[in-house]
Amino acid sequence: MPSRIRTSLAICRARVSLPPLVRQLRALPQSRWQSTATTEETEGISKGSPGSSKTIKFTSETYPEIKRNSKFAELTPGHVTFFKELLGKDSAVIDGVTKDATEDIEPFNGDWMRKYRGHTKLVLKPGSTEEVSRVLNYCNDNMLAVVPQGGNSGLVGGSVPVFDEIVINMSRMNQIRSFDDVSGALVVDAGCILEVTDNFLAEKGYIFPLDLGAKGSCHIGGNVATNAGGLRLLRYGSLHGSVLGIEAVLPDGTIVDDLSKLRKNNTGYDLKQLFIGGEGTIGIITGVSVICPQRSKAINVAFFGLESYEKVQEAFKEAKGQLSEILSAFELMDGQSQSLVHTVTKNKRPLEGEHPFYCLIETSGSNSEHDTEKLEKFLEHVMENEIVTDGVVAQDETQVRALWGWREGVPECLGHWGGVYKYDLSIPINELYALVEETKEKIKQSGLMGDTDEHPVVGVVGYGHMGDSNLHLNIAVRRYDKRVEKLLEPFVYEWIAKRNGSISAEHGLGLAKKNYIGYSRSDTMIKLMKQIKQLYDPKGIMNPYKYI
Amino acid sequence: MPSRIRTSLAICRARVSLPPLVRQLRALPQSRWQSTATTEETEGISKGSPGSSKTIKFTSETYPEIKRNSKFAELTPGHVTFFKELLGKDSAVIDGVTKDATEDIEPFNGDWMRKYRGHTKLVLKPGSTEEVSRVLNYCNDNMLAVVPQGGNSGLVGGSVPVFDEIVINMSRMNQIRSFDDVSGALVVDAGCILEVTDNFLAEKGYIFPLDLGAKGSCHIGGNVATNAGGLRLLRYGSLHGSVLGIEAVLPDGTIVDDLSKLRKNNTGYDLKQLFIGGEGTIGIITGVSVICPQRSKAINVAFFGLESYEKVQEAFKEAKGQLSEILSAFELMDGQSQSLVHTVTKNKRPLEGEHPFYCLIETSGSNSEHDTEKLEKFLEHVMENEIVTDGVVAQDETQVRALWGWREGVPECLGHWGGVYKYDLSIPINELYALVEETKEKIKQSGLMGDTDEHPVVGVVGYGHMGDSNLHLNIAVRRYDKRVEKLLEPFVYEWIAKRNGSISAEHGLGLAKKNYIGYSRSDTMIKLMKQIKQLYDPKGIMNPYKYI
Repeated sequence: MPSRIRTSLAICRARVSLPPLVRQLRALPQSRWQSTATTEETEGISKGSPGSSKTIKFTSETYPEIKRNSKFAELTPGHVTFFKELLGKDSAVIDGVTKDATEDIEPFNGDWMRKYRGHTKLVLKPGSTEEVSRVLNYCNDNMLAVVPQGGNSGLVGGSVPVFDEIVINMSRMNQIRSFDDVSGALVVDAGCILEVTDNFLAEKGYIFPLDLGAKGSCHIGGNVATNAGGLRLLRYGSLHGSVLGIEAVLPDGTIVDDLSKLRKNNTGYDLKQLFIGGEGTIGIITGVSVICPQRSKAINVAFFGLESYEKVQEAFKEAKGQLSEILSAFELMDGQSQSLVHTVTKNKRPLEGEHPFYCLIETSGSNSEHDTEKLEKFLEHVMENEIVTDGVVAQDETQVRALWGWREGVPECLGHWGGVYKYDLSIPINELYALVEETKEKIKQSGLMGDTDEHPVVGVVGYGHMGDSNLHLNIAVRRYDKRVEKLLEPFVYEWIAKRNGSISAEHGLGLAKKNYIGYSRSDTMIKLMKQIKQLYDPKGIMNPYKYI
Repeated sequence: MPSRIRTSLAICRARVSLPPLVRQLRALPQSRWQSTATTEETEGISKGSPGSSKTIKFTSETYPEIKRNSKFAELTPGHVTFFKELLGKDSAVIDGVTKDATEDIEPFNGDWMRKYRGHTKLVLKPGSTEEVSRVLNYCNDNMLAVVPQGGNSGLVGGSVPVFDEIVINMSRMNQIRSFDDVSGALVVDAGCILEVTDNFLAEKGYIFPLDLGAKGSCHIGGNVATNAGGLRLLRYGSLHGSVLGIEAVLPDGTIVDDLSKLRKNNTGYDLKQLFIGGEGTIGIITGVSVICPQRSKAINVAFFGLESYEKVQEAFKEAKGQLSEILSAFELMDGQSQSLVHTVTKNKRPLEGEHPFYCLIETSGSNSEHDTEKLEKFLEHVMENEIVTDGVVAQDETQVRALWGWREGVPECLGHWGGVYKYDLSIPINELYALVEETKEKIKQSGLMGDTDEHPVVGVVGYGHMGDSNLHLNIAVRRYDKRVEKLLEPFVYEWIAKRNGSISAEHGLGLAKKNYIGYSRSDTMIKLMKQIKQLYDPKGIMNPYKYI
């Protein structure tokens, strides 16, 4: 039925040439001190649109069971004097110890989601690896707890203090150190902003092998420390494969000089891997070397409706087979997620009618003609074989962004009614959507979901990175309700544990998931992880109260 | 000059339809007990063709400075009884302690290169992870040193004992545990043979993301333990990215149950990475989970002549840009390497005349027509711009193998004159070939190189995986000569150290490189590595005398 697709393409031309939805959605109010970027997903409960900083509850109040560890020293003017002398520059130290600096310090105490807020009185911004080393060595000697901080765009409270931990902010270390335009090996300071770095690479015809919503503010050091996943993992793989080298500082000041630019180096244990996803608990990453792929010249985006999750799996398999080396994203959105986006944005849908499932496919390749031909052949196949019910293909950059808007708009739109319970999960692909169905059924049976105000739950939706088996289960609510929470937990975590899934696919543990690691890791693994923490940070000064 | 290429293609048709060279080259005599596969490269000195096992010198004689550590217990009949009871099956224990079993044990004592030979009297073949756990726990308690052994196709003496270490051979653990044909996640026992596994995947339309010459005998557990690089790294990345999970046993018998099938799992330190490239020094890998890509339907191979290393770099950059997502190999061979192959095989060369450099390019994609078009466009570009001087493209599977033969034949042919000094190095790509030139100049000036028998050196050649900055520097010699050795070492290692290269790109450390790690790693890194070894193997029973 090639004619069917042509019709859809024609419809697409008429329908999706709207002002780019994604930009509309991103124009949410943000307070002065927040990170200017949005991030792709949100975590935990977000209640309505962000208000002023005054509304953020202190983490110590939200979690009264977490107590400040009395082994850590309290900051004194003497400590501050040391740091000021060490770092030289006035702007490198924000001192709330010897004076009131609440307003200047607040942005470093709170996370951009307004969920976590610490009590730090000191922010340090070292300008070199040597300075980081001397800072950490001093803190270690003086039992001063620290929190490494990059762009502060994380989703699990990992980059802000809980109590009075010193914030070591890496924003001053923001130089691109070197780029080899034959091998693609890039070496950067940890504080380089992802988007700035990617723009630099774009000029050379290269691309950073990671992309995510927060790219305008997140630091590459932070990306590596949290093993960020994002939108390109399907194509370029995980940072464990693309990071060639790391320079990091251990709590005692030791500089781990593992900043290799080599693609192959089999000379001993690959220790840098422990820092990838280590969330700043064993050291601070100061430099990163990464292998960057060539930037694709041709980008195509298609958007489909499908009648069942079985068909979604079939479409994914076909896409992998037929689009193979050019497939760069395969995103899943269920029908309800798209209905809710539609309700909030009032934008015209890309497809006629409603479908139980939607997928967004992106291809990136070196030859536009070839890619289009492959994509059209794929479309014909999946439509002729009734794997997909309807589909459109973006005709230009504006339509590409508009279609992505129906995927990227989901997390923001879900917050429209008041709050969202959010889970970022890895699940074996064949069972991935079953969790959404079971959760929906459970909540439906409880009578807590409905169209009227007495029902706390608006809807249960599932979407995410199908290509990586990464589901975002979201429950949109009118208000926070203990009964809903009781239905969800430990149900969701137990469901994941039974299927050997992950309770945190890409967001990490931070503070938010610290207590749930047991659902995804055995006691043995947790014990072995604690051994590593003990080995590198025996005094426990690095990012305490978090991770494992 | 498109016509020029057409001419070359025509020449190719006439010229390379020979009996597949690679098969000829692989038909070298092999003794009964050796691994039946060849491996791609050889390491250290190989003197002529392999003779009988009697000619292998004991490692303890070759390296008299290595002494047996007296802290290890000597094997007793009591130990053997324990293992026989534990493993049950007669075939699971080869007992040279209570009886003479020299002939049966010899294949496990010697490496396939005939360079290393140990004195073990006991080979254990556990059949399950639980058995590996009980074996190791017993050895740890009784201070019995062990050597984990996979397909025994390594190149640095890592998988054979030096003294009387017990060999724990993994060949009985050879089951494919599961395969998910939607996600591509494969779970196998460590003892699965790479080629067998890849054949299994081929039937499903998938491919193992690693390929190397020894695939007919090497184990996947061994590949992971040595972080094997091989031929597909350029396309599919390193095992640090594609291995999803590992099951391993620590010396004390602890089972590390990290066999995730998930593409994303950010729940704690990624400990499995320490086993990737850990060379069996902190535990034994018993199971591996790996993400497998779709198998490409179309394979093309082209072979070029180029006039300088600058042109090679240009060609590589163009290939990355134009062939981008379909480029699966970019191999470099210098003029002398091809002359020596020609001298030994007498095969007709694929190109007219001689060229200072040759490159082999392979593309793998999902659409044969598209790939051919891309390749032809690339060829036209590089010929029109005089980046390459001449080139041919294989027209069928036979020609593909024939062209690969000119690359894969290099290591075997170099041994023709008696011996080869071999180095497997990572070097920043712009300086990669300079080492060959400097080495050649140095040897030339010494008067040790020439066409007649009084000159020990036949030639100095460079070839390797250009796409991974991985150079194989080879010095073909008529005989082993101390004067040559003195010219080469520490010269080569110092040269590498000055450029932050790696003294072992893909072969690992094993016994061969143990003492040279300092040329590629700082004292800090070595100290941190020793810490890890101490943490996991405090008694030091795992693969002693090797690695760091």
